[in-house]
Amino acid sequence: MKLPTKVTIKEVGPRDGLQNESKFIDTKDKIEWINRLSKTGLSYIEVSSFVHPKWIPQLADSEEVLKSIQKKPGVTYAALVPNIRGLERALNCQVDEISVFMSASEGHNKQNINKTIDETFPVLKEVVDEAKKANVKVRGYVSTVIACPYDGLVAPKQVLKVADRLFDMGVYEVSLGDTIGVGVPTQVESLLETLLKHFPPNLLAMHFHDTRGTALANVLKSLEMGITTFDSSTGGLGGCPYAKGASGNVATEDLNYMLSAMHIETGINPEALIDSAFFMEEKIGKILISKQMEIARNERSGNLDNARTV
Amino acid sequence: MKLPTKVTIKEVGPRDGLQNESKFIDTKDKIEWINRLSKTGLSYIEVSSFVHPKWIPQLADSEEVLKSIQKKPGVTYAALVPNIRGLERALNCQVDEISVFMSASEGHNKQNINKTIDETFPVLKEVVDEAKKANVKVRGYVSTVIACPYDGLVAPKQVLKVADRLFDMGVYEVSLGDTIGVGVPTQVESLLETLLKHFPPNLLAMHFHDTRGTALANVLKSLEMGITTFDSSTGGLGGCPYAKGASGNVATEDLNYMLSAMHIETGINPEALIDSAFFMEEKIGKILISKQMEIARNERSGNLDNARTV
Repeated sequence: MKLPTKVTIKEVGPRDGLQNESKFIDTKDKIEWINRLSKTGLSYIEVSSFVHPKWIPQLADSEEVLKSIQKKPGVTYAALVPNIRGLERALNCQVDEISVFMSASEGHNKQNINKTIDETFPVLKEVVDEAKKANVKVRGYVSTVIACPYDGLVAPKQVLKVADRLFDMGVYEVSLGDTIGVGVPTQVESLLETLLKHFPPNLLAMHFHDTRGTALANVLKSLEMGITTFDSSTGGLGGCPYAKGASGNVATEDLNYMLSAMHIETGINPEALIDSAFFMEEKIGKILISKQMEIARNERSGNLDNARTV
Repeated sequence: MKLPTKVTIKEVGPRDGLQNESKFIDTKDKIEWINRLSKTGLSYIEVSSFVHPKWIPQLADSEEVLKSIQKKPGVTYAALVPNIRGLERALNCQVDEISVFMSASEGHNKQNINKTIDETFPVLKEVVDEAKKANVKVRGYVSTVIACPYDGLVAPKQVLKVADRLFDMGVYEVSLGDTIGVGVPTQVESLLETLLKHFPPNLLAMHFHDTRGTALANVLKSLEMGITTFDSSTGGLGGCPYAKGASGNVATEDLNYMLSAMHIETGINPEALIDSAFFMEEKIGKILISKQMEIARNERSGNLDNARTV
C-alpha cells in the first residue's frame, strides 16, 4: 500500500466542535484552549465562526477569541465566514484565513444556508473576491458529500460540480465533508475517483464525522488515493447537543495515533494534544469520547490494557 | 478496490466480551442473550469458556449456559477450551466446536497460560487430537499478533510460526488477534503479506480490539487482502473492567454497518442485533460504547443527526 509520508491535520474543534455542543464555553476558556492547541504542533486551527450569533450562539464571541489568542508563528488561524458581513467582522480581527461553506445537496444547503445551491454561489463569490483583495486565503467546505439527511445519497458528480465552482471562484482547497458521518470506504473511493480526475489530491481535504465509526477507515482509503489533508476535532467534539457521547468530528488524537503509527508525519505532540483535550473536557463538563482519552484515563487510574485475554 | 462479496462475522461477545467485564452476568441473562443473538442471522457464536473458574469467574457457568441455550439450526455454538479437562467439560455439553488459544509472544503467553510457547503446543495438540476423535472442529486463536504488552512489537514471522504449528495440529482456521488493540493498517498489511504466502485467506480470521479506534480501518485493509472472517462482540463488550467506556472487541453492529454499507453480505439483521446489544447493556448495567447503539439512543430520544453543521 502506498501512503503519503506527511499529512496536514486541520484542527476544527474550536469551530465545528464547539458549534455543535449545547453549552456555551467561556470566552477565556476558548482562548486558553486555542493557546494550548497552538503548542501541540498543529499548523492550522479553525478558531471560530462569523455566522450570525442568532444561528450559532455558542460562537457569538468570535471577535474576542480571534483578537485575544496568542498567535504562534507558523500556525494558521482561520475562521468560518458565511457572507460579506461575516467577512468584514473576520477581517477586522486580523484573521489569517477564512473558510466559506455550502452543501453538495439542495436539501441540506437550504436547511443550513436558506438558499438553493445556485443562489449560494454569488454570495460566496462576493466573499472570496473581497477576501482576495485583503490578501486573505479562502478555503471551501462542501458538506454532505456522501449523503444528505434530507435528500439521501449524493452523487459524486454533484460534489464535483460544487467543488469545481468553488475552485473557479479562487478557493485554494476544498474540504469534502461527510457531514452526517454515514460514509464507508467504497463511497469515499467513488467520490475521490470522480474528483481526482479533475483536481490533484493536494487541493482536496477530507472532513469526516465519526458518527458510525468509519472515519478512520475512510481516512485510510483517502490516504491510499493520495489525500494529505484531514480535518478533525480534539476530543472528537461536535456531537449532537442532546445526546451524551454522540459522535462529532473524528478525534484529532485518534487520527494522529493512526497516522503516526503508520509512520506518517503530522508534526503533532500526542501528549500535548491529549492534555488540551482534557482541558476542554473539564470546561465542557461532559466525558469526551475519544479512544486516546480513554487510554489516558486508564493509565492515569493505574489500569493497563486488558492483557489477560485472547 | 476489490472486496469480498460475503463475510462471516463470528460473535465472541458472550465469551471474549463477558470475560473482560467485572460484573458476573446472571446465567439466565446470558442464556437469553445468546438466544437473542441466535435470531439475528449470526451463523457463529462463541458462547463461553471452559477455562478454570478460578481464572475467569465471570464464565464459571459455561456448562449451564451451553446446555440451556436454544440452539438454532445453522448456527455454530462454540466455546473456548484451554486444556484436556476443559475439553471434557465442553464435550459433555454437546459443544458444536471449540477454540484453543495461545499467543505469538512469549511474554503474553507466559502471563496468560503460564507456559512458554513451546510448552503450549503439546497441551493444545492433546486437545485437538481428542476433539477430532469426538468429531468436533477446532479453531485456533493466536493472540498479540501485532504487539505484546510485555514484549513490544511482534514480528509477522513469529505469528507465522505459531499459526503454522496450529494448522499442523489440525485446526481448521486461525484467528489472528490484535489483543491490545494497537494495530494500524500498515501492520496488518505486513502481517497478512507474510501469512498469505503460506495460507489461503479463507483459513484466516481477524480479531481486532478497538482500543485505539483503528479496528475498522484494519478490517478494511484485511478485506482488501482477501480476508472474509472477522470476530467481534455485540455492544463492543470486553473493555478493561475498571474503566468506563474502555474498548473491547470491535462492536459487531459497527462492523456489520460498514460491511453492509459496502454491499458485503453478512446475513445479519441490524435491528435484531442492536436490540440484543441493548438487552445486554441493561443486564450489565453500564453504557456500552458502540456507534450504532449511540445512534439508536439518539433516534429513540427524538434527536436526529446534527444536520446544521459543515
